Amino acid sequence: MEQVRADVCVVGAGFAGLAAARRLVHAGHEVVVLEARDRVGGRVWNRELPDGTVVSAGGTWLGKGQDRMFQLCRELGLDVYPQYEQGDHLLRLEGVNHRYRGVLPATGKGTLLALGLALSRLQLMTRRLPADAPWRARRARTWDARTLGQWLADPRNVPSATARTLLRSSMHLLFCADPAEVSLLGALTLARGGGGFGYYTDSRRTESHLVDGGAPELARRMAEHLGERVHLSSPVQRIADDSTCARVESDSLTVRAQRVIVATPPVLAGRIRFDPALPTACGHLLQRVVPGAIIRVHTVYPQPFWRERHLSGQTLAPHSPVPLTIDQTPRTGQPGVLSSYAFSTAALHLGRLEPAERREVWLDALAERFGPRARHPEQYLETDWSAEQWSLGGMIGHFPPGTLTNYGSALREPVGRIHWASTESATRMHGLMEGAVRSGERAAHEALTALSLGRRTVGT
Amino acid sequence: MEQVRADVCVVGAGFAGLAAARRLVHAGHEVVVLEARDRVGGRVWNRELPDGTVVSAGGTWLGKGQDRMFQLCRELGLDVYPQYEQGDHLLRLEGVNHRYRGVLPATGKGTLLALGLALSRLQLMTRRLPADAPWRARRARTWDARTLGQWLADPRNVPSATARTLLRSSMHLLFCADPAEVSLLGALTLARGGGGFGYYTDSRRTESHLVDGGAPELARRMAEHLGERVHLSSPVQRIADDSTCARVESDSLTVRAQRVIVATPPVLAGRIRFDPALPTACGHLLQRVVPGAIIRVHTVYPQPFWRERHLSGQTLAPHSPVPLTIDQTPRTGQPGVLSSYAFSTAALHLGRLEPAERREVWLDALAERFGPRARHPEQYLETDWSAEQWSLGGMIGHFPPGTLTNYGSALREPVGRIHWASTESATRMHGLMEGAVRSGERAAHEALTALSLGRRTVGT
Repeated sequence: MEQVRADVCVVGAGFAGLAAARRLVHAGHEVVVLEARDRVGGRVWNRELPDGTVVSAGGTWLGKGQDRMFQLCRELGLDVYPQYEQGDHLLRLEGVNHRYRGVLPATGKGTLLALGLALSRLQLMTRRLPADAPWRARRARTWDARTLGQWLADPRNVPSATARTLLRSSMHLLFCADPAEVSLLGALTLARGGGGFGYYTDSRRTESHLVDGGAPELARRMAEHLGERVHLSSPVQRIADDSTCARVESDSLTVRAQRVIVATPPVLAGRIRFDPALPTACGHLLQRVVPGAIIRVHTVYPQPFWRERHLSGQTLAPHSPVPLTIDQTPRTGQPGVLSSYAFSTAALHLGRLEPAERREVWLDALAERFGPRARHPEQYLETDWSAEQWSLGGMIGHFPPGTLTNYGSALREPVGRIHWASTESATRMHGLMEGAVRSGERAAHEALTALSLGRRTVGT
Repeated sequence: MEQVRADVCVVGAGFAGLAAARRLVHAGHEVVVLEARDRVGGRVWNRELPDGTVVSAGGTWLGKGQDRMFQLCRELGLDVYPQYEQGDHLLRLEGVNHRYRGVLPATGKGTLLALGLALSRLQLMTRRLPADAPWRARRARTWDARTLGQWLADPRNVPSATARTLLRSSMHLLFCADPAEVSLLGALTLARGGGGFGYYTDSRRTESHLVDGGAPELARRMAEHLGERVHLSSPVQRIADDSTCARVESDSLTVRAQRVIVATPPVLAGRIRFDPALPTACGHLLQRVVPGAIIRVHTVYPQPFWRERHLSGQTLAPHSPVPLTIDQTPRTGQPGVLSSYAFSTAALHLGRLEPAERREVWLDALAERFGPRARHPEQYLETDWSAEQWSLGGMIGHFPPGTLTNYGSALREPVGRIHWASTESATRMHGLMEGAVRSGERAAHEALTALSLGRRTVGT
């Protein structure tokens, strides 16, 4: 087994790990990055179709306030271009397609009023959370003993059946999980990171831009700058922390480092053996922050034919097994690429079908909204994030009830030489690529401080 | 790496795995048991104190309806003896010790009435659950979107503050977790396995007997009968299932078997790499059924001095960091052994203290109830189940909200050649040693059926 030394060992080459390593290298430190997969990017992944079309199958869009991501694109010479937003969106309810524009579908004044009311109620609660310690809010214990699902199902909170359906559907796609699994406090904590649910549910704000070549290309370029410091196919099995250094053992390589940054999703960090055992709060937190389920399908057509019919490609069909579609056509305008999604229980059910049957169900769902041409794509590519060994679900880990109030303080608290990064630990833009980058930079800052203190101690 | 063949490979030598292996061997099959620890028993563990006293530090008591456990004790020549129940129990509330007898502390008629009312309400819901598929109950989705914590905190359900405190405390010790973490449906599912919460909250029913030599001695004797089939210190890393057989890879040994019984707690099963990946429902279920936190302390005194003062040793102090004590003196009547417990958040906080400080807090808590003699034990032994690498918490995994309704059907459903056992998967006596044994025997039965079908197919 090869052994190397470094100032800092970074576990995971998603945006959190890459951003951490980049900052540490800029500060002049020796860094080794261990990545389990045979590629960088983690939950950000460019996949190539047989015809050569490249599609981004994980984190894809940039939006307002995602400053670090836009800046990294500039630094690394990547252009961004606006998401196609012309034409109408579609809302499919009870077998009927309704065209709409803007953020809220025109489903009657009662629905709009109820949606506005519910979102402003959630916003009031969100504002009461301390950004870096939501578990300290006055009503934290009460909110953490409730589920988002129960809150949304209560007509006193959302006084319209259609509004309840729409909100439930939005939350499904935000967490890729049944809202019954998500703590109300946990949901508010995510919302807090963008200033409120209004941010996360408005695609014009969160998904305004695409990266030319795909967001994964940014990860690739960041890794390119790190060069041989990045070791692929090196899943970390064990991290031992003794008095002189930390020993990070992967399948291919053992790294002895002064500091370690664990930059994987919590569900994977929890599968590493730590020696000594993690403090209970930290270990139990990693057990609990679990991801949902998501299957994403890319269908490719010669042209984005929906545009001719003045459709944006963005559709919402709460009762469909494939409730969401969005236009993901490259900057050149062709081929036409539609990205569509199944979440949570629906993804589980679809995952159980035979591939041909699943494809049938999927294309039927698209045809209901886009007509018969949608049923005959030139290419059809599925990405099931739960089947990915180094994700075990998607897209983000959520906080189940009781997690933040009992274990939340362990979210960013270093354990000995170990620091924690992941979009789940971000206080700003939590759950987005931007949150991952910020969490990595925060962890790098912690490691830098610790290293400079260590050096000073050695010097005296 | 040594390779062996077997009809069935059992992963885990707790009661579930041992009971499965025992049944399979009786049926004439070749069995290999792989156990991660250097001992059998799993969550059942005899520890030896420096003075030679042996204490059972995990599952310890037997009770009414736990027929398989009593029978196994008879078969393997182990006596049982009744739990010491003479004298008064103590309830400590607001700094005052109240003596009581029987199941319910005499804390005023209002409290008793409220407790009775709450338990009968829970009982009504429990009765509506299909034993083998609680997720099919008519109100399953509603109950699974609620937490036990929220239900208990609602004065409409438990109309007395003292009753709420007592019930909350009982549930804390049942799940070793904040009731806010536990789905109401999940809690009812556990209760269903014993006929209702009345069973689990009545120590006269669940904890009426001790095994002479400790319940772990039963596990040891079961393993002794299995002989060289049991391989210790063999944590399983990977299970690959191909068309001809399953390949179970441990640190020390690889087993090729027709069937595999995974008989570990779900949180550990979820850490094994499965190839092909588990179906999403199964993988996500294993991620979610997580254990709570428990620290158990044994204090040993020359005599069970509390008995002289007509105390049973059983105390409940809902506001203390050590809310529960129970007499665990061996059959001979000496030395006096007291078993005391911290659960959930209190266990987390105590776990963070320096050992000497934790011991101070702990002995203070005992002295409040048993007087100054309790402060000076001859022996003091801590068992923190969260620090145990092959438990990662204690004592059982609970169902967080949304888990049973979305993933519950995967609880006992075989995946290819793989069968599942654990007390968490038991429909009767769920969460107890009895449930573990029953789950192991159920999984063995499944494997036997599959093997005999396989043989018939080969024969034709």
